[in-house]
Amino acid sequence: MADYPNSVRINEDGPREGFQIERADIPSQDKIELIDALSQTGLKSIQVASFVHPKRVPSMADAEAVVAGISMRADVEYTALFMNERGLERALATGRLSPRASFGLSASPAFLARNANASVEKQKESKRAMVRLMQERGIAPANVGNISAAFGCNFQGDIGIPALLDTARDVFELAQEFDVKIESLGLSDTMAWATPNKIRHALHALRETYPDVDISLHLHNTRGMAVANALAGLEMGVTEFDTSIGGLGGCPFAAHKGASGNLCTEDFAFMCEEMGISTGLDLDALIDAARLAERIVGHPLPGSVMRGGSLSRMRVLNQVSV
Amino acid sequence: MADYPNSVRINEDGPREGFQIERADIPSQDKIELIDALSQTGLKSIQVASFVHPKRVPSMADAEAVVAGISMRADVEYTALFMNERGLERALATGRLSPRASFGLSASPAFLARNANASVEKQKESKRAMVRLMQERGIAPANVGNISAAFGCNFQGDIGIPALLDTARDVFELAQEFDVKIESLGLSDTMAWATPNKIRHALHALRETYPDVDISLHLHNTRGMAVANALAGLEMGVTEFDTSIGGLGGCPFAAHKGASGNLCTEDFAFMCEEMGISTGLDLDALIDAARLAERIVGHPLPGSVMRGGSLSRMRVLNQVSV
Repeated sequence: MADYPNSVRINEDGPREGFQIERADIPSQDKIELIDALSQTGLKSIQVASFVHPKRVPSMADAEAVVAGISMRADVEYTALFMNERGLERALATGRLSPRASFGLSASPAFLARNANASVEKQKESKRAMVRLMQERGIAPANVGNISAAFGCNFQGDIGIPALLDTARDVFELAQEFDVKIESLGLSDTMAWATPNKIRHALHALRETYPDVDISLHLHNTRGMAVANALAGLEMGVTEFDTSIGGLGGCPFAAHKGASGNLCTEDFAFMCEEMGISTGLDLDALIDAARLAERIVGHPLPGSVMRGGSLSRMRVLNQVSV
Repeated sequence: MADYPNSVRINEDGPREGFQIERADIPSQDKIELIDALSQTGLKSIQVASFVHPKRVPSMADAEAVVAGISMRADVEYTALFMNERGLERALATGRLSPRASFGLSASPAFLARNANASVEKQKESKRAMVRLMQERGIAPANVGNISAAFGCNFQGDIGIPALLDTARDVFELAQEFDVKIESLGLSDTMAWATPNKIRHALHALRETYPDVDISLHLHNTRGMAVANALAGLEMGVTEFDTSIGGLGGCPFAAHKGASGNLCTEDFAFMCEEMGISTGLDLDALIDAARLAERIVGHPLPGSVMRGGSLSRMRVLNQVSV
């Protein structure tokens, strides 16, 4: 029998992952309402916006307005995505976020070229500039690394263990330049090339190389593997996952049409709770938030538990009807 | 690392699972076209229709016409569902199917009462009548057992290991009455109460009790767990799965609204093939069949790989563009 962890930490990425690919005219107030609803579910980290060029991602042009409007809870960390110094400046200027510069690199040079019009060296330089900017503001960089396109890439093909380990080494070396020791490394399956076996092999190789580093997973569901990949992660002892409410999301630059989004928050929380893995989340509140997200985007979201219903509710119904 | 089987057998249930819950006016010719397309994908078993009362399931009123219209391949087994002697008579009368009476019982008395207006004893009696009818026609009963609602039921609640083992014993005893030794036992997660942990525990308990019996899985995706549950099955050595093209399906009597269907054939085949588990199926042909199924039912199907695309195709695209 597999040993699962006792508890997991779930970071909600839905507002950022979801709204960045939705139409640009969703009212900021709707986004704020969703974020506030998510804040009431037990989530401890919510990524609320992306500070990118409004011409590149028009639906994120209101990032400042969204951040300004949130009813912030003291026990929730509100984060944002930024790709360069300009984005970081904007995030800092809100005065409401605590942006941390992490050390993130792509395992796919081809994706980098298409997604950010950059080389690996240019990406490193951009990360250095952001870390320096934060240091100037008195903010220490986070001891967190990230690898995007960690398992494969629509433009590059498969990312094998050697390429993954090379990228990990680059990430650790980049952090080293700033005397930062990476303690947590995130693997992003940006374009959904992972299968449970790949997850296992990648985790095994990274654990052998960096035995003291925690690994987290950011999984996309484009090929329907997100829950199974998360299960493989749980079986390998992973305790931190990024998810999206209702399964919102997808990568706007990943050359997928009509593809489904990220690992769905409430579906994953359902699986964990049913298997005795504590999430600290209120599943029924998550389901309500997923339904709200669906009303806001105006089209069906891929989440299943929001339609199928939780079993805890079914159990109560059975008790009542007996 | 988990040990996976070298190969799996995938039984296609989409035409039966899917069309039984779709609107009644889908032309028989469309159903036949889908079945014929599925026959070209490498599938060796396709469940094509359900012989049930047309008033109860109007969309299956054309079962005879569908069976009559299929371009049957000699290397594909075409099966049908029947719930009583009348349905069995109809299936036999087509002269094109080889119906086998298997020994199937529900683990949930409450579901049986709602779904078939029957008690466990009445269900056994109905199975006996069908086996006797087949014996009169010179057809030996199959050494196959089935347990529906094996993991839980919307009306009964959780099905624990004791109730599951009791039902298994009933199935084996029923077969024994006809001197049949069950060699394969199917577990149906009819109302999607299974999680990977439940799958593991159920398989473990059944294996301890019946070490020589193969176990197969029939999984519904109502709560998004189908692929993860199938993965748990693979990890426990299960080599036979029922699936539905495009994720067609769902149980018409399970009190779910808008719920997603069965374990999706092409998503599951994708996972297996990517993990080195041979399915014998042509994934691109399956994706084409899933798109055909979607056109026929006229609404989006829940399958992911039919939208996200296979990686084998992506790999070819990358080679070409380099």
